[in-house]
Amino acid sequence: MSEIRQDPTTGEWVIIAGDRRKRPSDFIHQESRPERPVFVSSCPFCPGNENMTPPAVLSYRDENTGAWRLRVIVNKFPAVTPEGSPLEKISNGYFLSMDGLGYHEVIIDTPVHNACLALMNESELTDLVRAYRQRYEAMSRIPFVKYIILFKNWGIKAGTSLEHPHSQIIATAIIPGHIRVQYDLAANYYSDNGRCLYADLMKHELETGARIVLETDRFLIFHPFASHRPFETWIMPKASHASFGWISDEDIQYLAKVLKITLLKLYHGLNNPDFNLVIDSAPVGEENANIYRWHVRIIPRITEIAGFEVGSGIFINTALPEETARFVRDIKV
Amino acid sequence: MSEIRQDPTTGEWVIIAGDRRKRPSDFIHQESRPERPVFVSSCPFCPGNENMTPPAVLSYRDENTGAWRLRVIVNKFPAVTPEGSPLEKISNGYFLSMDGLGYHEVIIDTPVHNACLALMNESELTDLVRAYRQRYEAMSRIPFVKYIILFKNWGIKAGTSLEHPHSQIIATAIIPGHIRVQYDLAANYYSDNGRCLYADLMKHELETGARIVLETDRFLIFHPFASHRPFETWIMPKASHASFGWISDEDIQYLAKVLKITLLKLYHGLNNPDFNLVIDSAPVGEENANIYRWHVRIIPRITEIAGFEVGSGIFINTALPEETARFVRDIKV
Repeated sequence: MSEIRQDPTTGEWVIIAGDRRKRPSDFIHQESRPERPVFVSSCPFCPGNENMTPPAVLSYRDENTGAWRLRVIVNKFPAVTPEGSPLEKISNGYFLSMDGLGYHEVIIDTPVHNACLALMNESELTDLVRAYRQRYEAMSRIPFVKYIILFKNWGIKAGTSLEHPHSQIIATAIIPGHIRVQYDLAANYYSDNGRCLYADLMKHELETGARIVLETDRFLIFHPFASHRPFETWIMPKASHASFGWISDEDIQYLAKVLKITLLKLYHGLNNPDFNLVIDSAPVGEENANIYRWHVRIIPRITEIAGFEVGSGIFINTALPEETARFVRDIKV
Repeated sequence: MSEIRQDPTTGEWVIIAGDRRKRPSDFIHQESRPERPVFVSSCPFCPGNENMTPPAVLSYRDENTGAWRLRVIVNKFPAVTPEGSPLEKISNGYFLSMDGLGYHEVIIDTPVHNACLALMNESELTDLVRAYRQRYEAMSRIPFVKYIILFKNWGIKAGTSLEHPHSQIIATAIIPGHIRVQYDLAANYYSDNGRCLYADLMKHELETGARIVLETDRFLIFHPFASHRPFETWIMPKASHASFGWISDEDIQYLAKVLKITLLKLYHGLNNPDFNLVIDSAPVGEENANIYRWHVRIIPRITEIAGFEVGSGIFINTALPEETARFVRDIKV
């Protein structure tokens, strides 16, 4: 028999399949991946091709050689742009639309074309997380910005179009409905219980233990109770912080460390799966640490959503989070 | 500049990309598809292999030969099953879960392994739609059933695991949150305006005309204003009917006819794309025709959702619905 579980952070239901459930090892990536070269002359993100991209908004350079180790640029094909009005407008009295106002930048994680996040070293990952925070901070100071989303697409199934490792940051003038629901739900929980929904979530995950992948002094890594997809992984800080933008220098280093371990476990356990990595954070201006807690979500893209998900919005997860967590926990890295 | 559009039926925002927008012809499926044989001896849905599946719940047979033309069976690996309690249960005071209660059936569209919905003839499609209604009706009479979803996954990218053409029907004891939001939004619209949200939607689509693919006496086929994905296509009845379960015999034939034309246009225009087809219908017991109107959604799976969608719930559509609708409208079939 299958079980229907509710995600306490969104209210969404997920069907954890019974009879059609698979073993964790069934999700190991089987196809061989094409070899990628260390440098590609036509790649706009490779060193020497800086003229193929807009100028850098930010770059970290090697102290000795002056060569860049990480670059941030405006996305050449942005989803949103700084032009336009932040005010809603109504067209023809029925449909509602507005200008695609916002900022869309690309973070080139590394100059090495064939690098892989899981295999990068800790200081490189620390640089990356620092760049995330730096651009988050900068965007959060722009008056119309209401929400900032940091994400990374790894592999074709995760929707990436350029294979050179990169991350993206998008700031919008609207709060996504999905985030609004999350935040309001957490606000109601605090109002009803006097405690943070996310602190309680972490407490229950620690008490149960079965879904934990890794625990450190600063972070808890686990496969959530109502995981939408197999091997969905959350990285949550133990300290009460609503916004990723406020992460401390010290925590940046600790996050880089657990990110490395988490990604390496998935890399070895599932044979370098495609994945999305996103950072959920409080809306800009609503950084109430009693209510919300920022966290990283890693979603391996090893199954496809189908008609049932498209029609109902309810995911069918063919893996049991307790089993996938144990599988990943046991992988030595 | 991109434009952010609101889906009037869900309240969700969609970014219609500006600078990264593609032409309709950029979405034509490029890879060659493997040849499929007319019969596969190991396929549980091929004729002669009926013992590989549970017994038929329903079958339509050829009057002369007695051979089945369409079969409905219980899914051997169901997402939900009729056992269990329909009552919510709380586990450990924090997480909420319940039994995966429901019905999950598979409709084998045709005995022909290598058939393709778009190329099937009108009488076969009429049979298929009639079987949809027949199983919808049967499931709607089960006391605990609150919602019934009919869908079809075509192609690997659409999440199908068996290539023999088939559809699925799932009845659940819960109303998906996504559907609840849609229905409540439409109920509020009716309460505020005294008119049906969907009737007004259709009126505006007809007035604009730019997103219409096909109009017949009974149905309107269009690419919605805030299409989530390129070439998303809706088929909506002109008559006020909230539930697909109540479709008339006559309308079944008319629907089969427009379904055939719509799918054939996509088949020729995009070179047989993978797609999901779902039927949105009112919850069982809430068939108020002033509020809701059932409709078919066809979602070609030609782009991947990425980190931004996963993180924000907001889709970035790289096609303009007005352009894709014109492209499909102009395809002669």
